[in-house]
Amino acid sequence: MADRRTPVERGVLAAVLTPIKVDLSPDFTEWVAHCKWLLDQGCDGLAVLGTTSEANSFSVDERLALMDAAAEGGIPGATLIPGTGCCAIPDTVALTRKAVEIGAAGVLMLPPFYYKPVSDDGLFAAYSEVIQRIGDGRLKIYLYHIPQNSGVPITFRLIEKLRRVYPDTVVGIKDSAGDFANMEGMIREFPGFRVFSGSDEFLLPILRAGGAGTITACNNIAGDLSARVFANWGGADADACHKNVVDVRRTVTRFPLIAALKEVMARATGRDGWRRQRPPLDPMSAEQAARLMAELEGVGFSLKQAA
Amino acid sequence: MADRRTPVERGVLAAVLTPIKVDLSPDFTEWVAHCKWLLDQGCDGLAVLGTTSEANSFSVDERLALMDAAAEGGIPGATLIPGTGCCAIPDTVALTRKAVEIGAAGVLMLPPFYYKPVSDDGLFAAYSEVIQRIGDGRLKIYLYHIPQNSGVPITFRLIEKLRRVYPDTVVGIKDSAGDFANMEGMIREFPGFRVFSGSDEFLLPILRAGGAGTITACNNIAGDLSARVFANWGGADADACHKNVVDVRRTVTRFPLIAALKEVMARATGRDGWRRQRPPLDPMSAEQAARLMAELEGVGFSLKQAA
Repeated sequence: MADRRTPVERGVLAAVLTPIKVDLSPDFTEWVAHCKWLLDQGCDGLAVLGTTSEANSFSVDERLALMDAAAEGGIPGATLIPGTGCCAIPDTVALTRKAVEIGAAGVLMLPPFYYKPVSDDGLFAAYSEVIQRIGDGRLKIYLYHIPQNSGVPITFRLIEKLRRVYPDTVVGIKDSAGDFANMEGMIREFPGFRVFSGSDEFLLPILRAGGAGTITACNNIAGDLSARVFANWGGADADACHKNVVDVRRTVTRFPLIAALKEVMARATGRDGWRRQRPPLDPMSAEQAARLMAELEGVGFSLKQAA
Repeated sequence: MADRRTPVERGVLAAVLTPIKVDLSPDFTEWVAHCKWLLDQGCDGLAVLGTTSEANSFSVDERLALMDAAAEGGIPGATLIPGTGCCAIPDTVALTRKAVEIGAAGVLMLPPFYYKPVSDDGLFAAYSEVIQRIGDGRLKIYLYHIPQNSGVPITFRLIEKLRRVYPDTVVGIKDSAGDFANMEGMIREFPGFRVFSGSDEFLLPILRAGGAGTITACNNIAGDLSARVFANWGGADADACHKNVVDVRRTVTRFPLIAALKEVMARATGRDGWRRQRPPLDPMSAEQAARLMAELEGVGFSLKQAA
């Protein structure tokens, strides 16, 4: 387990779920407890306010309040990599500034994602504008490549230009597109650039290739399993350990992912509220939920009582 | 020209450009002047804060301030159909509430556009949540079908369900996908539902098919030409009038559209600031701009001194 005072730069990070109340507002207490539990499970860091977190379904004010709650709740800033990229530059700046203020290890920054296609020069201008408005050497940006949601891929040409102009700020990427060749390519082309996989499938392969680790939804419920891989990825039983993680991932991804993970948390904590998502995400049916749990049991998965 | 006190329900609407200052903030004065000029040109209404307006590149606070500026600047609420749909329900609610407060004729509401694919039930839940939080009979929603940007199409099934549950609220749609058969289908399937085309190509066809009119980017510079078509769409020279609009559209859409329209406005007003866009949108090169103006001249287009 990492030292909690050193900004997390590699390892196993959870793309942290956001529990919500009956009025659809964030459940700050439950969320802070979940963050702490994830760290206890062995996660090296917490990618809060990302895709799995339903971050784009929350207003900027709600997201700022969640970051404040993390700080006030005693979550070490050095473990946090909040998502801060919005369509509008002022929103991205507000969230990024807050992340820097609470001592976050970095931010995970979507490109502006309404207009498409946009040029690399246009995306560079957008990132550059944010970096200059923040104007703080503590800022560390992880780019977020998730074209299936954003519609805006992060190209090698864009990375090259950002790295050239902002080498101390643009330090890594989360690649959620699922193409391992792209991750290997970035590791090879950009020495020192920290490449995280958004899929647990590649946890072991990316570590072997010199990558940084994973930032995944599945780590909400299998952080302990992933941590075991990371602690021992050069060891003889690394593949066997990794298989446990992959089994869980392949099971939950056969269901609506966020709903499935929230279902598992609801059962583990005994708190039904965990099942809520913000529209437009759909709840799972009771039939689906039962099948999910049966299939997870089938791969030997059981979640220790959480929080 | 429509009575400016009756909420606009059909005709020719401009998808209003947003001029910005050197610090990238909205130029409220120039924007209000542009809105007034568009009404003087014969536009029946103003679809402010949409795609052409770069609305998603502005924060919610900036968008609220623009609506206030319209009201304070004397733009009749009955002419306004502001875009209010965001990824996050609280943002959509804040913008929609403001639109209702300033007496807007309606709102043009994108579906939440980060998650994809999402189900019709999930989208229904999102729209429903907004409608119920607003809880105001004055609210009139135009759905916004622009899958090339949103990634989230508006299906017939979703329209049917929304119309069934909220018949007095969900009153129409802007279809920017460019498939005329889809527009015809909605006109046929949903009597009384106001179908606007997002393309000038279909101004005359949609009026002949019983549709409501157009809401287009091109109407920023060709509102007078479109107004002539709308005033006389049953007349003998309607096709000839429509050809003038289509010629302008086909010319400007060979260039980056928002940049091209801002270039025309910069030249018409003599104010260079009009050329600015927010990142990630790219500026046009001087060479492109010269070619645009030459091609517009080639189709007989010239813009009267604006504002």
